[in-house]
Amino acid sequence: MKPMELPSQWAGFKLGRWSTSINVRDFIQNNYTPYDGDSSFLAAPTETTKALWKEVLDLFQKEREAGGVLDMDTKIISTITSHGAGYINKDLEKIVGLQTDKPLKRSLQPFGGIRMAQNACRENGYEVDPEVVEIFTKYRKTHNQGVFDAYTPEMRMARKSAIITGLPDAYGRGRIIGDYRRVALYGVDRLIQDKKHQIDTSLVRMTYENIRLREELADQVKALQELKELGDIYGFDISKPAANAQEAVQWLYFGYLAAVKEQNGAAMSLGRTSTFLDIYIQRDLEKGILSESQAQELVDHFIMKLRMVKFARTPEYNELFSGDPTWVTESIGGVGIDGRTLVTKNSFRYLHTLENLGSAPEPNMTVLWSTKLPRNFKVYCAEMSIKSSSVQYENDDLMRTVHGDDYAIACCVSSMVVGKEMQFFGARANLAKCLLYAINGGVDERLKEQVGPKYRPVTGDYLDYDDVMEKYEDMMDWLASLYVNTLNVIHYMHDKYSYEKLQMALHDREVKRYFATGIAGLSVVADSLSAIKYAKVKCIRDENGIVVDYEVEGDFPKYGNNDDRVDQIAVNIVRKFMDKIRRHHTYRNSIPTMSILTITSNVVYGKKTGNTPDGRKIGEPLAPGANPMHRRDTHGATASLASVAKLPFKHAQDGISNTFSIVPDALGKDNSVFMGELDLDRLSEEVNKN
Amino acid sequence: MKPMELPSQWAGFKLGRWSTSINVRDFIQNNYTPYDGDSSFLAAPTETTKALWKEVLDLFQKEREAGGVLDMDTKIISTITSHGAGYINKDLEKIVGLQTDKPLKRSLQPFGGIRMAQNACRENGYEVDPEVVEIFTKYRKTHNQGVFDAYTPEMRMARKSAIITGLPDAYGRGRIIGDYRRVALYGVDRLIQDKKHQIDTSLVRMTYENIRLREELADQVKALQELKELGDIYGFDISKPAANAQEAVQWLYFGYLAAVKEQNGAAMSLGRTSTFLDIYIQRDLEKGILSESQAQELVDHFIMKLRMVKFARTPEYNELFSGDPTWVTESIGGVGIDGRTLVTKNSFRYLHTLENLGSAPEPNMTVLWSTKLPRNFKVYCAEMSIKSSSVQYENDDLMRTVHGDDYAIACCVSSMVVGKEMQFFGARANLAKCLLYAINGGVDERLKEQVGPKYRPVTGDYLDYDDVMEKYEDMMDWLASLYVNTLNVIHYMHDKYSYEKLQMALHDREVKRYFATGIAGLSVVADSLSAIKYAKVKCIRDENGIVVDYEVEGDFPKYGNNDDRVDQIAVNIVRKFMDKIRRHHTYRNSIPTMSILTITSNVVYGKKTGNTPDGRKIGEPLAPGANPMHRRDTHGATASLASVAKLPFKHAQDGISNTFSIVPDALGKDNSVFMGELDLDRLSEEVNKN
Repeated sequence: MKPMELPSQWAGFKLGRWSTSINVRDFIQNNYTPYDGDSSFLAAPTETTKALWKEVLDLFQKEREAGGVLDMDTKIISTITSHGAGYINKDLEKIVGLQTDKPLKRSLQPFGGIRMAQNACRENGYEVDPEVVEIFTKYRKTHNQGVFDAYTPEMRMARKSAIITGLPDAYGRGRIIGDYRRVALYGVDRLIQDKKHQIDTSLVRMTYENIRLREELADQVKALQELKELGDIYGFDISKPAANAQEAVQWLYFGYLAAVKEQNGAAMSLGRTSTFLDIYIQRDLEKGILSESQAQELVDHFIMKLRMVKFARTPEYNELFSGDPTWVTESIGGVGIDGRTLVTKNSFRYLHTLENLGSAPEPNMTVLWSTKLPRNFKVYCAEMSIKSSSVQYENDDLMRTVHGDDYAIACCVSSMVVGKEMQFFGARANLAKCLLYAINGGVDERLKEQVGPKYRPVTGDYLDYDDVMEKYEDMMDWLASLYVNTLNVIHYMHDKYSYEKLQMALHDREVKRYFATGIAGLSVVADSLSAIKYAKVKCIRDENGIVVDYEVEGDFPKYGNNDDRVDQIAVNIVRKFMDKIRRHHTYRNSIPTMSILTITSNVVYGKKTGNTPDGRKIGEPLAPGANPMHRRDTHGATASLASVAKLPFKHAQDGISNTFSIVPDALGKDNSVFMGELDLDRLSEEVNKN
Repeated sequence: MKPMELPSQWAGFKLGRWSTSINVRDFIQNNYTPYDGDSSFLAAPTETTKALWKEVLDLFQKEREAGGVLDMDTKIISTITSHGAGYINKDLEKIVGLQTDKPLKRSLQPFGGIRMAQNACRENGYEVDPEVVEIFTKYRKTHNQGVFDAYTPEMRMARKSAIITGLPDAYGRGRIIGDYRRVALYGVDRLIQDKKHQIDTSLVRMTYENIRLREELADQVKALQELKELGDIYGFDISKPAANAQEAVQWLYFGYLAAVKEQNGAAMSLGRTSTFLDIYIQRDLEKGILSESQAQELVDHFIMKLRMVKFARTPEYNELFSGDPTWVTESIGGVGIDGRTLVTKNSFRYLHTLENLGSAPEPNMTVLWSTKLPRNFKVYCAEMSIKSSSVQYENDDLMRTVHGDDYAIACCVSSMVVGKEMQFFGARANLAKCLLYAINGGVDERLKEQVGPKYRPVTGDYLDYDDVMEKYEDMMDWLASLYVNTLNVIHYMHDKYSYEKLQMALHDREVKRYFATGIAGLSVVADSLSAIKYAKVKCIRDENGIVVDYEVEGDFPKYGNNDDRVDQIAVNIVRKFMDKIRRHHTYRNSIPTMSILTITSNVVYGKKTGNTPDGRKIGEPLAPGANPMHRRDTHGATASLASVAKLPFKHAQDGISNTFSIVPDALGKDNSVFMGELDLDRLSEEVNKN
């Protein structure tokens, strides 16, 4: 990039590589102020905040009374610049910008699929304008249509039987975090200049890959131009860098707002913004042009906006995700690779919104936990967890070794370096069902139809461990191949028909792409195989000879009790399936990863999975994520956590979730005795060993 | 394909491989009746034909009076099913179907480019509906937009300077011939069944290529379903095979009509239909349900429809192509690989329309000339050439060795096997201008801007042959690379945003694709290099040192006089440039070919080319195609033809054109003395030697 005059907005910042090339991390490292003090500096909500929040609460109330949706766009197709300015209360708002022209009015996003958009409207009593339907039927193909054009009958069957589930073929894949901080730090003009330079220096040998890249970069430039226009609509010139804290929050939010105007992704995460913004706040505090109360007000108003992000979705979607989540995940804290904590006062301010505005699931406040976090911050986290039950924890000590210190979490566990990595989200393969297919030679136990390959089924009355394992290997081979190929279709079509041009405009050109797969039913598989190995499992067949139930004779080790006999079965399955995934071509040569992650959808998956050899009955939920099955972890919380901690991160790099309910008292009766800290630290250390 | 009951519509046909798989050639070979008789059987136009044609002539008159365009669609986006039935005169028409709801009303085709569609309308006094403009600006990208998103600055410059010219980046590439005969022979349902079978048996490893193919096949099925609907709109059930001659012509025409409703290609050729249709006519004649007069009426009405095919185009387009051509090329005659002539009575009937309806440039009647054609047919061709000046001849003896006996010509010279091969059309590189770039080190002689690479220019007052050739080689290397990469962008985007789904639905799945390049200015290059070699050429430089003119001292051999000294220079340049083209990656691994072909656009190219070392002045036309420069072929027609005939077909497989004006008398004063035949035969033999 050409040298340029230093923008006046940067006055007071320590310069570095960030000032000659796009490099937010370098800016943070050069300018942030680590904070190891306590929470006593925090300010209560201002009167303005209280008044504004009351209006939002009233709107939420009205939304609930209206059955969950207050209003919907049925004619204006949502783009970055599709709507005029919208406000909750213009006089009170310190940070402005809504997805549509009215608060909580859901936008119309048909690029992913027109039928989905129509269903979402219809189920809420609205009807999409017929002209819009015509455009997206006759003239503009959607992601969903493209996917179904290319699917094989086998893929459709696997989808129907739910051995592969929750695929983002009828909804946006999400899981991409734009580096929204760039908007504040550099202003949009500089970002456009940078993108144009990328175009100028891209390969000119016109292969498919290079043409695609050039077109994407051109689309990104258009998205940035629209982003500038979005600023204009609200009366802000965001072509230049943000000059103060308020502008920094506002610019950053415009970046995020543009993303949610363009995409209805399964997770529209925010990134890692608190420490970045702290630098601006700190500068203004030091200049004396901002008080702590005003700083908190900015954060409160920003978080308020994030709480109001909503999408038009169908009842099936909401059932799968147990609600209407947006996964506006913000990653807080963590430790730098130089050993300094990345906790700032603003990390406290973000968590403090849970008090100022009350508890809420969104934005999804995620603390990047490290044993090295300042004790004061740990204590405050525990306090806010107790008060709000709304804090998520993830293991920074583990992820930092892979991603460095400027990564963030997309959705609930997917870690990626902000602006440098993205993920092709891939939902889940149901390994419990796959085990049943192995036993029944590919015949689905519920549909009674051949879905998998016609391998030889198990014969005889009792299951033999070696026999079942051999068959299970073959069936996992088939499933891994089908699964990866299905995802290849989805991501090809998503890029083709619903490319995230604004989010990708806030990425580097050379993006590292993860190809995320996932598994469901791990604990059912582990326990089933344990039962087959250590107890006796008798097959019950229906009139067609399909094994539809099992009788377990005797006891067997169960996953979740720190018992290696079964825990190692789980470890092995994870490793094996990931290795099978790795054997296949992945779209854009993305790097395959796997998650063991279902926080809510395990309930739906369970409904579609027959009786299993571990004694679980048809329709009963699978355990969420990597959790042991409910009530089977009988040796206490630490043993349960230890079993989960054995799962190898390098074969499940997209994340391992363990939904862990705990009585608040267990996290400490007061701030001086903080057991939670000890437990989390111990778990961290345990995991690091694996 | 599964065996099926024989359709009753096939009664009387000799079965063969064609009856169990899609194979029109096999049907023809098994069923056609070669004809070596004379033209005395032909029938005059019926009263109905005369009355109907008068109405069409009136419409043409009105169109001319209206300045070239009678009416335009500005709101209805043209698709296969976009319009209700349209008629000239429903009571008189034996073959029905119009591009829009009214005769000569031009359809609105924005998928190639919305600005082009707007310009075409605006230049004719119409305005495209703003909603259509919005759709194709905000929600549906066009081919043109995609191309310009990916172009490099160098590509834009080469386009501006016209060293690469006439690129199909702002208009449809055309040059694809659907096998419209399949619609008549099999009916649409069978074709859909076949396409679905292709989908079922396509690769399931989901690479980019395979996903693209699967989606294209799905789109093709949709196009066929729409084609059936088009039949319904006019009251015909074309799901089943055609039962008689009238249906055969009608079904075939619906196939073609669907293609021109969907695509505004630079050439929308018809294929090789006359002998195919003769089989149906012959069957009906033998059954006694059709008279010769009725047969001719069907053909006359069909040809009338083809003459009415029009597109909305801009003045620039019309200037480039000297008019408003559609290149509805029909290939007639030729010889089978078994030695039988493929001339049938219907070959005569097609040519006879030039008499019954009068002369016309469209459809472009192209006789596939062979020395083995029946003498009576040769005589009739000569007769019709004399009467109409509207017959094109191409060398069947040459092309048959490459393509077999079921190929056809797209546009003017591009040969391809019907339904099995297609072409990515690539316009032309201006080799004359490239020579000037070699002399001036990449600086454009008109724009005075650096367009090519900054190689060392020629120094000194006189051009040295070896020095110029070395520089020319380097500059051709650069041009070939840029040219191929530019075409790669165009064809990627055409497939992405303006895929010819109906035309490709009438192709096999495994299509052989030609990557057609072309050169302009060959004779100028040959003569210029000859002048440099055999005479003395002095450089005249402008104030910036750019060579802008040349003085030739002495005489030199000129291309077009059967003089090997210069003819071999032309041969060498063709071979060299084609070899340079071959060194580059081509889109979809298509097979690179080259044409030496400009029938009209040489005039525009000449305007953009400076003075050349052969003495040609700035702005003067280049010679068309492979023609010698005007008036330089001073040794008679045969010597001129002999020079052209030396050009190697294997390095110019997309065709070599030689625009050859001849006084009608030269083709024979009466039918008994037919000199034209002898000349054409002699030329064929000459060419076959090379």
